[in-house]
Amino acid sequence: MLEELKAKVCQANLDLVRQGLVIFTWGNVSGIDREKGLVVIKPSGVSYDDMKAEDMVVVDLESGQVVEGSLNPSSDTPTHLVLYKAFPNIKGIVHTHSTYATAFAQAGVPIANIGTTHADYFYKDIPCTRDMRAEEMDEYEKQTGNVIVEAFHDINPDHTPGVLVKNHGPFSWGTSPDNAVYNAKVMEQCAQMAFISYSVNPRTTMNPLLIEKHYMRKHGPNAYYGQKGQNH
Amino acid sequence: MLEELKAKVCQANLDLVRQGLVIFTWGNVSGIDREKGLVVIKPSGVSYDDMKAEDMVVVDLESGQVVEGSLNPSSDTPTHLVLYKAFPNIKGIVHTHSTYATAFAQAGVPIANIGTTHADYFYKDIPCTRDMRAEEMDEYEKQTGNVIVEAFHDINPDHTPGVLVKNHGPFSWGTSPDNAVYNAKVMEQCAQMAFISYSVNPRTTMNPLLIEKHYMRKHGPNAYYGQKGQNH
Amino acid sequence: MLEELKAKVCQANLDLVRQGLVIFTWGNVSGIDREKGLVVIKPSGVSYDDMKAEDMVVVDLESGQVVEGSLNPSSDTPTHLVLYKAFPNIKGIVHTHSTYATAFAQAGVPIANIGTTHADYFYKDIPCTRDMRAEEMDEYEKQTGNVIVEAFHDINPDHTPGVLVKNHGPFSWGTSPDNAVYNAKVMEQCAQMAFISYSVNPRTTMNPLLIEKHYMRKHGPNAYYGQKGQNH
Amino acid sequence: MLEELKAKVCQANLDLVRQGLVIFTWGNVSGIDREKGLVVIKPSGVSYDDMKAEDMVVVDLESGQVVEGSLNPSSDTPTHLVLYKAFPNIKGIVHTHSTYATAFAQAGVPIANIGTTHADYFYKDIPCTRDMRAEEMDEYEKQTGNVIVEAFHDINPDHTPGVLVKNHGPFSWGTSPDNAVYNAKVMEQCAQMAFISYSVNPRTTMNPLLIEKHYMRKHGPNAYYGQKGQNH
Repeated sequence: MLEELKAKVCQANLDLVRQGLVIFTWGNVSGIDREKGLVVIKPSGVSYDDMKAEDMVVVDLESGQVVEGSLNPSSDTPTHLVLYKAFPNIKGIVHTHSTYATAFAQAGVPIANIGTTHADYFYKDIPCTRDMRAEEMDEYEKQTGNVIVEAFHDINPDHTPGVLVKNHGPFSWGTSPDNAVYNAKVMEQCAQMAFISYSVNPRTTMNPLLIEKHYMRKHGPNAYYGQKGQNH
Repeated sequence: MLEELKAKVCQANLDLVRQGLVIFTWGNVSGIDREKGLVVIKPSGVSYDDMKAEDMVVVDLESGQVVEGSLNPSSDTPTHLVLYKAFPNIKGIVHTHSTYATAFAQAGVPIANIGTTHADYFYKDIPCTRDMRAEEMDEYEKQTGNVIVEAFHDINPDHTPGVLVKNHGPFSWGTSPDNAVYNAKVMEQCAQMAFISYSVNPRTTMNPLLIEKHYMRKHGPNAYYGQKGQNH
Repeated sequence: MLEELKAKVCQANLDLVRQGLVIFTWGNVSGIDREKGLVVIKPSGVSYDDMKAEDMVVVDLESGQVVEGSLNPSSDTPTHLVLYKAFPNIKGIVHTHSTYATAFAQAGVPIANIGTTHADYFYKDIPCTRDMRAEEMDEYEKQTGNVIVEAFHDINPDHTPGVLVKNHGPFSWGTSPDNAVYNAKVMEQCAQMAFISYSVNPRTTMNPLLIEKHYMRKHGPNAYYGQKGQNH
Repeated sequence: MLEELKAKVCQANLDLVRQGLVIFTWGNVSGIDREKGLVVIKPSGVSYDDMKAEDMVVVDLESGQVVEGSLNPSSDTPTHLVLYKAFPNIKGIVHTHSTYATAFAQAGVPIANIGTTHADYFYKDIPCTRDMRAEEMDEYEKQTGNVIVEAFHDINPDHTPGVLVKNHGPFSWGTSPDNAVYNAKVMEQCAQMAFISYSVNPRTTMNPLLIEKHYMRKHGPNAYYGQKGQNH
């Protein structure tokens, strides 16, 4: 079932390690088959060393029930499901505890868009979710999805494909599991550079016109970066 | 004698290098056989390149005497023995000079619990011991154990398996030598992220309910992270 | 056509990855044949894993037209062309998003010459360009070249072979594609050290006589660093 | 001539790269045969990739003349010679531009002894030399040696085997070329940790009794760290 998607999701999980975004089991990637309404996700707490495509767990988007797989799905599965329902165009989701993005999440501070590296992939500041309320703690993972959606009430998630969950860490998404990993790496790099930039000049800002220019040269209707037919 | 434990302790010492937690000979791991009352520990000042299981030194928990081994045990052995006696559930201890945790120890500042990465493994702030008094210097390594125990007079060491020794560096422990190395790596990662978080926002804090939630989802009676029967 | 230069430019692009200066496709190197008036440059958005010398694109210096190559040239090509025209002695140009230099560019802060590591290769502070004006956004890449040239109205680009483009990242150049990569690495290293130096002592400066001494011992008429006939 | 020492000096130079202390040609190691009054040193500006023991240059301690070798000796040779003459017990010298130690040198700030990692190898703060005067610039490398010696007028160089040259970078020394490399690595590690410690707590200090205790447990008459007969 969904063998191709399982292989992609497994590879994307392994890429998190290769990109230096996770240690131990501290991350997970999922992918979705929108037509079938099924999500493929990493099993919970399984070492990356031993991970194989057939270990991936298939979960029903609507019910959250495991449809195939002998292992428990990632404990963050409810977060992934909320995001797939709320953001209809995304096809892959990544969660990591990557060092700099997690540090910003712990600080409760958005990653400001102060450079073209950021603006090339994230149109707005990468927001940080609000504090969770006491009554939301019981269904922590599902409510994590809800506070993320809330943070995007005035932001288009297709153009700003990432978020910081306060005191927790980053989630990113994209047009595929692989693209979500790419965005996770960009977010980590932007977090590191923002940390340094603000240390050097706490009041730095970026001209909004430059943000516009850079995001559009890669993603706008007249995008001219890369080769014809390439997907950025 | 204790061949299996020696092999585990040797491997755990080598893992310190692999995890980037030690350079040169700056670290040591021990393990304990509680039934026999014997501790297996790395020899002092021996290069990791040449280290073999048979080089590990066996020391009597009560007397501190070497029971087997031709090399001197780690000069930190008295610290390990004090901890094994005071914390009855722990079965492995690690000492390193890992960069960020040591820097916090040099600063005399606890690693505050401001994120779920920390809360997943350490229930409380990772404390820093008090300054040692002049009259305690003579038996420095033993007194190091004592000031650690003192720092845990109101903290359960099974739930917060690590400490900073002021102006010196981190010690961690766990349910096995391997688990103690795991906790040493988590502590280093949390120290690095806390350093960045406080640089970005010196006044950041974490909701105590969130700490509760995260520690309990991995370690509480109804833990649901990972696979059934897994040990976190 | 220009097979030797293509091979050098391709190798220099791959060296950016090896030196830790780029991830993904975030960088480009070009070289010039001044006699023929032709520039060889990396194709746009192509993965470094697959890059071969024959993928390099040949562009006419004056017209900017592609003379040979089936792929689109780097989107930064107009910047390279402006620099080759304005700085007549340079024979290679590099653009990266290397972490520390980019962070300084995002901060809008020059990399101050406060050490001999800097002074050995860059005679002056590495300047940061001014903000681009709204009317300059349309031809962003060409205007990027123009604001760089403007920043060097009182600086000799042969002696200070690098610049920060505000909110964007570093460009460097040199006597060959390879030398431009070398200077990109030096700039990144100097940026990292300047970040740390200013954190430790925000008011540090360097004696101008020491700058003079160090730059001249490598590059002056009586240079005595290295072996006779070596090129620094 | 001096084949064994040449092999050791060559290996120590290569170890600088392996330890992450130098990039390009930015470092040099020398060793001395005190009986013969001859110093063996790395040639100037030669790539580490190609370096062989027979490339090492032999220089006379007193006259500074090249006694053997077809390549120019390191441009820092006059500094090495001054130190060998002033510090009669040292047998190896290292100069690098390692990131954190160089950043402290650029900041003009000593590396304070605030932790046992430092105190295990360096008894005092690692000092920073004074600014060089205009009239000293002509013989920059020789005067670099002189300002180092001046900085040690009240410090025993055998117990504090390293220094920061203001706006330049670190020098270290030791009982052999290899030991000098070891001390260079310790200095870099201590610089990085001091940077972090002071960021976390600008007012941190260390009890002088603890410094005494740690230096002496490795280097005092009753040293008990390591194995009998080992050299620390």
